[in-house]
Amino acid sequence: MTAFPHHDGSPLYVSNDAPTLGEQVTVRLRVPEGYGPLRAVRTRSNPDHEPEWTDAVRLGVADGWEWWEAPLTVRNPRHGYRFALVHEDGRVEWLNQTGIHTIETLDADDFALVSYPAPPAWLHEAVMYQVFPDRFARSAEADTHETPDWAIPAAWDDPVDPVNPGRSQQFYGGDLPGVIEHLDHLVELGVNLLYLTPVFPAASNHRYDASRFDVIDPLLGGDEAYLRLIEAAHERGIRVIGDLTSNHSGDRHEWFQAAYRHPGAATESFYYFTDAENTTYESWLGVSSLPKFDWSSDELRERFITGEDSIVARWLKPPYSIDGWRIDVANMTGRLGAVDLNAEVRQLLRETVESINPDAILLGESTNDAATDLQGDGWHGAMTYPSFTRPVWGWLSEPTGEPYLTYDGKTETEPWFFTQPIGGIPRYTAREFAEAVTRFTAGIPWRVRLGNMQPLDTHDTGRFATNAAPGTIPVAVGLSMTLPGVPVVFAGDEFGLTGADGESSRTPIPWGSVAEPEVAERLDLYRDLIGLRREHPVLATGGLRWLHIDDDTVVFVRESAEESVLVLATRGDVDVELAPGLLAGGDAATDLVGDATLAAATDGAVLLTPDGPAFAAWQLPGVRTP
Amino acid sequence: MTAFPHHDGSPLYVSNDAPTLGEQVTVRLRVPEGYGPLRAVRTRSNPDHEPEWTDAVRLGVADGWEWWEAPLTVRNPRHGYRFALVHEDGRVEWLNQTGIHTIETLDADDFALVSYPAPPAWLHEAVMYQVFPDRFARSAEADTHETPDWAIPAAWDDPVDPVNPGRSQQFYGGDLPGVIEHLDHLVELGVNLLYLTPVFPAASNHRYDASRFDVIDPLLGGDEAYLRLIEAAHERGIRVIGDLTSNHSGDRHEWFQAAYRHPGAATESFYYFTDAENTTYESWLGVSSLPKFDWSSDELRERFITGEDSIVARWLKPPYSIDGWRIDVANMTGRLGAVDLNAEVRQLLRETVESINPDAILLGESTNDAATDLQGDGWHGAMTYPSFTRPVWGWLSEPTGEPYLTYDGKTETEPWFFTQPIGGIPRYTAREFAEAVTRFTAGIPWRVRLGNMQPLDTHDTGRFATNAAPGTIPVAVGLSMTLPGVPVVFAGDEFGLTGADGESSRTPIPWGSVAEPEVAERLDLYRDLIGLRREHPVLATGGLRWLHIDDDTVVFVRESAEESVLVLATRGDVDVELAPGLLAGGDAATDLVGDATLAAATDGAVLLTPDGPAFAAWQLPGVRTP
Repeated sequence: MTAFPHHDGSPLYVSNDAPTLGEQVTVRLRVPEGYGPLRAVRTRSNPDHEPEWTDAVRLGVADGWEWWEAPLTVRNPRHGYRFALVHEDGRVEWLNQTGIHTIETLDADDFALVSYPAPPAWLHEAVMYQVFPDRFARSAEADTHETPDWAIPAAWDDPVDPVNPGRSQQFYGGDLPGVIEHLDHLVELGVNLLYLTPVFPAASNHRYDASRFDVIDPLLGGDEAYLRLIEAAHERGIRVIGDLTSNHSGDRHEWFQAAYRHPGAATESFYYFTDAENTTYESWLGVSSLPKFDWSSDELRERFITGEDSIVARWLKPPYSIDGWRIDVANMTGRLGAVDLNAEVRQLLRETVESINPDAILLGESTNDAATDLQGDGWHGAMTYPSFTRPVWGWLSEPTGEPYLTYDGKTETEPWFFTQPIGGIPRYTAREFAEAVTRFTAGIPWRVRLGNMQPLDTHDTGRFATNAAPGTIPVAVGLSMTLPGVPVVFAGDEFGLTGADGESSRTPIPWGSVAEPEVAERLDLYRDLIGLRREHPVLATGGLRWLHIDDDTVVFVRESAEESVLVLATRGDVDVELAPGLLAGGDAATDLVGDATLAAATDGAVLLTPDGPAFAAWQLPGVRTP
Repeated sequence: MTAFPHHDGSPLYVSNDAPTLGEQVTVRLRVPEGYGPLRAVRTRSNPDHEPEWTDAVRLGVADGWEWWEAPLTVRNPRHGYRFALVHEDGRVEWLNQTGIHTIETLDADDFALVSYPAPPAWLHEAVMYQVFPDRFARSAEADTHETPDWAIPAAWDDPVDPVNPGRSQQFYGGDLPGVIEHLDHLVELGVNLLYLTPVFPAASNHRYDASRFDVIDPLLGGDEAYLRLIEAAHERGIRVIGDLTSNHSGDRHEWFQAAYRHPGAATESFYYFTDAENTTYESWLGVSSLPKFDWSSDELRERFITGEDSIVARWLKPPYSIDGWRIDVANMTGRLGAVDLNAEVRQLLRETVESINPDAILLGESTNDAATDLQGDGWHGAMTYPSFTRPVWGWLSEPTGEPYLTYDGKTETEPWFFTQPIGGIPRYTAREFAEAVTRFTAGIPWRVRLGNMQPLDTHDTGRFATNAAPGTIPVAVGLSMTLPGVPVVFAGDEFGLTGADGESSRTPIPWGSVAEPEVAERLDLYRDLIGLRREHPVLATGGLRWLHIDDDTVVFVRESAEESVLVLATRGDVDVELAPGLLAGGDAATDLVGDATLAAATDGAVLLTPDGPAFAAWQLPGVRTP
């Protein structure tokens, strides 16, 4: 790969990524020396859907790059822009979030500034740790609780039962005091954000079918344990976010019970009843225990979001003071057939969260293409899979073909792949991995992209390790820590757990295994790579340039004025030569992590020599500008 | 090019392109024999933003193609879907409106069904003729009118003055009786839809600055002449649509005059006044004579759109009974900074038009990427340039570099290109032409794409002929008649007129030149190619498959069960061989138009031999299905 003109939303290129409407922002473009000569560089914005142009001025050259700079006035809450490069010979090129083009480009792929209030800076500096409470740790206190009516008790080392009814009813009894007891594990790992899946009373082990939103499940230790956990986490510098279902409640919820079979009930308007007797109703994917909310109800809006003591408010406010929400099924929320209130609801949630605590975050689950909902008005970021998680699986898996049981007790040999019936895990090259990352992030403003969760797996997926090709776990974990987005560790990954699908991945944490060599090695890997992320802020907010992409290997660099981190990820062991001009400062590189060596030639070329499937990173000087 | 799996929104592949919400539709996919073997074909929809899958069944083979069929239930007003092709060897491919992919694809590029009421069928069968009234024809009656205060009178054969103030004030006095006198010219050309740019009273020759919307400009003959024109056109089988500015009025409009400098006036809410005295206000691109409408005004909505005797209604209802509206600056309508009421306004317009006359059409001007506004809820189609017009210019131009005068009297040598300051007309290969057409149509449902206007030029652009490369005018006109979309002839193109920009292209029609050999030849060309379009319904609604694309040539076929039309367009004269299997029925081809020969080999290959820059078309049998 030779060098290409580059721009992204990071501070090297954008003077202010939190502008207000009407404010002027300066944007910069870097162009490899000798790429032109260029007659002109212009920006093309599209305020109110009508093009507006500004001229860039050439600032000069530094380290082999010409820098250009242009003013932009932010005219819409999402202000898209692109660059036009006019060559002396008459050729025109366009640069947008998908790269460089000789033909005109789409509005959706423009770079974009966002004038909504900025997310808290800590979001982009977070390394998230996801805990599924029933399976994380069980305190002695848990023995004092009675097993609820719906539960099938399990001992901590029982195998997970992926078949109905065990699937949602098998009950290990992990609780919040158990989480508190293991908070130092989080500190040792280096994570600084704890994401708890639901903790409200429910009739399942996953608790996404809340029967109340205003108390914490007594089985988990109740409100008192929740408060104690949050305080203990905060003392350790760990923030805590909750998980809320805005798409539905459980059918045991008092709101639903009051209205079910009771036409005229006060909470009738909260749901979509479809007959006169209120016996049939819309529900999440037809699952009757999860009745769907009707967000045209003003009363629901007030009780859930906007009221003084709404659900959203109750846990954000003191004494609990959680640091934000992850919203479940955010993608379907407010959407049903011809109705689409999604933008209204997510904006209402955002405004409410900001008004209660501007330092709190709001993430939305949107498991597929999330771009339409991620323009900065609602979610600070998404729990989404096509922009990172699925591409990593596609590239770095080598399915074992091990059979596993599905919810209905059938044996399946085709590896699970995000419930997509496409014959298992697709086989991506490294090139396809990078193309998929680009494709599914190009429609998202940079600032929002930085807030997207970047897990290898979650409580809803199989564990990445289950089908990982030999030697690729460090590669995958390394990528999650170094690509733009919030790294996520699903509790148990650091113990080397496997699990074929979203059920069997909910394995209780084997706390006793810490001393086993393989587990200790995996823990070290996580500590090292989380440490890499935490110690180098450029990995949180720095720019991203791809430097080399082939079928087996990707090389990219994260850049700021302060430092650069060069990253290599490969399934193979072939040397990569970065041509002179691609990267400055190779001769000043410092090894950070990984199994590869770097050698800089006097002409500026850089040779990277990986050993086997490898992840490696080096620190280089910050980017110099004229 | 070898053959690829194919689907589009045409009747060969979609059982019902006007479904209602909840209705089941059958979609079909064709796959070249030997492309698989395929283990499965599935559809992936995304109702309420959550994936839903259906299985396709293999119907059998016909003419070398395997056909698969799957049911879809239309769940949202725009119901996107794609195909997943699962190969026996485990590979997965995705098919969407951009083509075939080995990696996952974006929602925006899905095929899409639309459950809003269908546009009138005649829209897709239309060949549109655009008339700019001041420059089309001047009747004797025009001599009886007094020249208005703002006008600078011009004789019919005076050159157009592109410099201010002549630019908008030079007044030739063309009128509606003049149009009536030349309706038979339209009949002879073969067009069946007349689009008149504004005919309301105004203070400019273009009349986009209406001072009233409720009467026809007396200078044009007034209401009486308008009615007479519509009736005369209808008698000849020609429909008529008007042109309405929903973004702004003129500053002489009574609504504006009543409110300007009159705080508290009844029509104050119609505009965006920005000071307490109503002396400053928002306007179209800052042009003070075009004050921008504020669509949050309920009163404006009623007076303009929804009221019994609204502007929109007045001319759609008898006695005028126009056949629809083209909406000016539709893209900016209702959009200003943080406000975006565009969807509301376009939906209101659509509902109103449908309620008054379901056989009327509604087109929106959206001169750049129009995809976000073209999802079927509002405009039946757009007057838009990046999906056809600009790609054609990019491919088939050879700028002369002739100087011309700009609005401020400066001499410009860089060819005008849609007001984009990119150094003139970009140079596209045929491949880039096809890529641009695909890129800017992939985000638009097929049914809406068919309603998009497909001009080579308009009153807002230079004339295509001005910079056409030698021999390419038939190629460009041919493409406008054969690609999916509504062909548009801007009056004067058929006389060979040129014009460097959107002003100088508004040349009065040189009616006396009909007998000149070059003009006669150009008229014949238009008659032939319009005839081709009108005689072959497959060119209106048939499917589109690209069969060959290289730097100089594109070959595609429009297909239905009844017939196929094969099209070749080239700047070069190199033979094209279509591989066996690409196209059935080559041995039964009939010449329709153009400068190329077709020879079919016994193995099914087809050899096309063009002579010089060429456009050619052949009729082939309809597509056989199992």
